Amino acid sequence: MNSDEHGETSKAPLDRGVSRGVSILDLVLRVIAAMGTLASAIAMGTTNQTLSFFTQFIRFKARHSDFPTLTFFVVANSIVSAYLILSLPLSIVHIIRSRAEYSKLILIFFDAAMLALVTAAASSATAIVYLAHKGNARANWFAICQQFDSFCERMSGSLIGSFTAMILLILLILFSAISLARS
Amino acid sequence: MNSDEHGETSKAPLDRGVSRGVSILDLVLRVIAAMGTLASAIAMGTTNQTLSFFTQFIRFKARHSDFPTLTFFVVANSIVSAYLILSLPLSIVHIIRSRAEYSKLILIFFDAAMLALVTAAASSATAIVYLAHKGNARANWFAICQQFDSFCERMSGSLIGSFTAMILLILLILFSAISLARS
Repeated sequence: MNSDEHGETSKAPLDRGVSRGVSILDLVLRVIAAMGTLASAIAMGTTNQTLSFFTQFIRFKARHSDFPTLTFFVVANSIVSAYLILSLPLSIVHIIRSRAEYSKLILIFFDAAMLALVTAAASSATAIVYLAHKGNARANWFAICQQFDSFCERMSGSLIGSFTAMILLILLILFSAISLARS
Repeated sequence: MNSDEHGETSKAPLDRGVSRGVSILDLVLRVIAAMGTLASAIAMGTTNQTLSFFTQFIRFKARHSDFPTLTFFVVANSIVSAYLILSLPLSIVHIIRSRAEYSKLILIFFDAAMLALVTAAASSATAIVYLAHKGNARANWFAICQQFDSFCERMSGSLIGSFTAMILLILLILFSAISLARS
């Protein structure tokens, strides 16, 4: 029982294998979440639609920058994507050194903060997309998706990556906690 | 070194004190977050304004149920509040038994899920409140806060409890992770 001071050596080989498996899964989910948020940011950031059936003097154009909430969506997804890419080296370190407790704590904290950020982006954009589709009778806000159909489709599609990242970040927090409990 | 099998006895008294302090802080933050989300749900749920300067035949009334997003806000805050209250007994158990790893893992997972839920509620409601205040020129959505001034104030105020709970839940996840790392 003296060997517990040497960390890894006190674990059974099976336990070490499970720890390593969790760490590798952490890395894979991080890559998927980074790609999801990046795709969301790009899809929303590049969408725009000009309605050309009006005269050439009056043009109706819809871009994400017309809606502050959608601009927030692009910025927040870019930040989360950048964070996830920057956290990959740390995740690789955890595969090799499974007892790095402090860096795991730092990752859990930032993962939770980024979970809040990506959820805020996804759900506020969803509120706007919902309004664009349905409108609101009480406030006299009309649905704009009849006119801006491709803009609306692109907007709705770009939410997927963001919500996927949200679910993956919840799992990442759980996996980090499991590997903290095992170490 | 044989004593590490007995859990608590292998820790120095100072370490145990820190663990207990973190657990007590966890309980206090949980109570505050529960009150914050409950207050948000009640404030948003009970707000309504009837504009009485119109004729008695046509009445303009604004309630949270006119906006699906605000109804989601009330429901989500109620769920998070109920979860936080139900998690209090478990949090008390952790003050007494600091090595309860599995129940801490369960708490971290649900805390992360509830963080996502309360953030979604707060930020989608914020998107609507922002629109109500500012409107949107491109989509021809007019600001409604000139007419529904007290409704808007109440709506804006009820966001505070929700965002407070969001920050507290991030801290709760961090504290649970710290106590997992120490145990």
